[in-house]
Amino acid sequence: MDFWFTETVNDTVGNTIKVKERIFSGQSDFQKIEILDTYHYGRTLILDGSVMLTENDEFTYHEMISHVPLFTHPHPEHVLIIGGGDGGTVREVMKHPTVHRAKLVEIDSMVIEKSKQFLPFVSCEMENPRVEVIVRDGIEYIKTHKGAFDVILIDSTDPVGPAVGLYKKEFYEGVHNALKHDGIMVAQSESPFFDQDIVRDLYAVLKPLFPIRKMYLAPVPSYPSGFWSFALCSKKSDPISDFRHKDVRSLNLDTKYYNEAIHQAAFSIPNFIQEMIA
Amino acid sequence: MDFWFTETVNDTVGNTIKVKERIFSGQSDFQKIEILDTYHYGRTLILDGSVMLTENDEFTYHEMISHVPLFTHPHPEHVLIIGGGDGGTVREVMKHPTVHRAKLVEIDSMVIEKSKQFLPFVSCEMENPRVEVIVRDGIEYIKTHKGAFDVILIDSTDPVGPAVGLYKKEFYEGVHNALKHDGIMVAQSESPFFDQDIVRDLYAVLKPLFPIRKMYLAPVPSYPSGFWSFALCSKKSDPISDFRHKDVRSLNLDTKYYNEAIHQAAFSIPNFIQEMIA
Repeated sequence: MDFWFTETVNDTVGNTIKVKERIFSGQSDFQKIEILDTYHYGRTLILDGSVMLTENDEFTYHEMISHVPLFTHPHPEHVLIIGGGDGGTVREVMKHPTVHRAKLVEIDSMVIEKSKQFLPFVSCEMENPRVEVIVRDGIEYIKTHKGAFDVILIDSTDPVGPAVGLYKKEFYEGVHNALKHDGIMVAQSESPFFDQDIVRDLYAVLKPLFPIRKMYLAPVPSYPSGFWSFALCSKKSDPISDFRHKDVRSLNLDTKYYNEAIHQAAFSIPNFIQEMIA
Repeated sequence: MDFWFTETVNDTVGNTIKVKERIFSGQSDFQKIEILDTYHYGRTLILDGSVMLTENDEFTYHEMISHVPLFTHPHPEHVLIIGGGDGGTVREVMKHPTVHRAKLVEIDSMVIEKSKQFLPFVSCEMENPRVEVIVRDGIEYIKTHKGAFDVILIDSTDPVGPAVGLYKKEFYEGVHNALKHDGIMVAQSESPFFDQDIVRDLYAVLKPLFPIRKMYLAPVPSYPSGFWSFALCSKKSDPISDFRHKDVRSLNLDTKYYNEAIHQAAFSIPNFIQEMIA
């Protein structure tokens, strides 16, 4: 018998993936966690019915959420990741030699444990001595760390369940305060095709908080619509004019998606999306 | 009862769409033609089980296949479209005042008729006096028109059924011969995520034929993987250095996806795709 996993949006459109085997299924204190082995995408992490990452295409998301801000900041040393317990973002952040310390604040210890057990391709740097893993609510954590970080990455799930607060004004005020005077924040900001209301609301929240706010885009085939957006908010550096493009060449990061041209091209926004975030 | 249309690739991964109503279903001499009304995407044209276009997102594909070459060529007057019987590409080509005549060569008259009847949002320019519709096999047509066109657009289906020949060397030799000395061809070239073998084979075929060959990329959520590629092959003009960017501003084409920045950004190619087309 064929077994397919299907993720729908608004119960009208979705992605479907043929499953080889269910590797793990459990209910944590926060969400349903499933890890599947699939024919097309390889191992796949699903939280509350939404694909978080697949072995086959996670590289586009994790490279783009990390390298775009880290090559914009002039000298990123202290990085905070909210969410991202799978480790994919940590893996990319660790490629930057300037980073002394990356703190990962994940609310759900089961995501961390099961990713270490079953998803080594993303969790491979979680034991790096430069990484500190903190199991705690990011919304609470951020309130008690003022002016502490060069770069903050919001590697959240969709705005349901434990992540609802990660789309609110109070949270981003906390993020702003937790950044140093020249800090940069990036948040994944959903699909500009399928989640237009979420995108509109999030960018309206960010507008009064940061002098520099820019959306950038990348494909993620296993996410709804296959196309994803990120919000870069910065106190000082601009992702185009302050882009450390020479360092991309000299560091030679072994990326599959990201490169110097992609960094700049990702900030070109189609007309219909410009209207959404104006 | 819920009715969903699902399109899979390699029987392992796919897109699924909830259907309101089946508007048309018929078998032509060449393929199965279905037109659905769907909740998310609106009206949707399906040929042999593959989504060709949806009302909601057809604009990205049709704008990108048309405006990128038409704003690269210095003065496009004579345009040939192979396939594209729905009319979406013709609609965008007609926005260019330099174009005296667009010939559309479509093998399947039923696609043309049913699109006119049920998909007016794409077929709206098919009666324009500057458009000539020819029901014929594009592979045969191209052989008898040497040095005739400024721009040729290959708006084909996937390489199955009637479109198999549109991926072969002999066909592109014919396209090369049918172009003027400074002509440009664009072919849709499938998904760089899901159709890597097709992409590799097609670019290997194009390599010895044209001095300038460049891939460009755009999202199309209703296509497999949500991300699509186009092959631009040119005898003389380069899509970046010869881009008529001032004309994009002055013509003000009323596009939803395409703009000056997108034209240039679309040619930035991720590392894993560069390896595929090297």
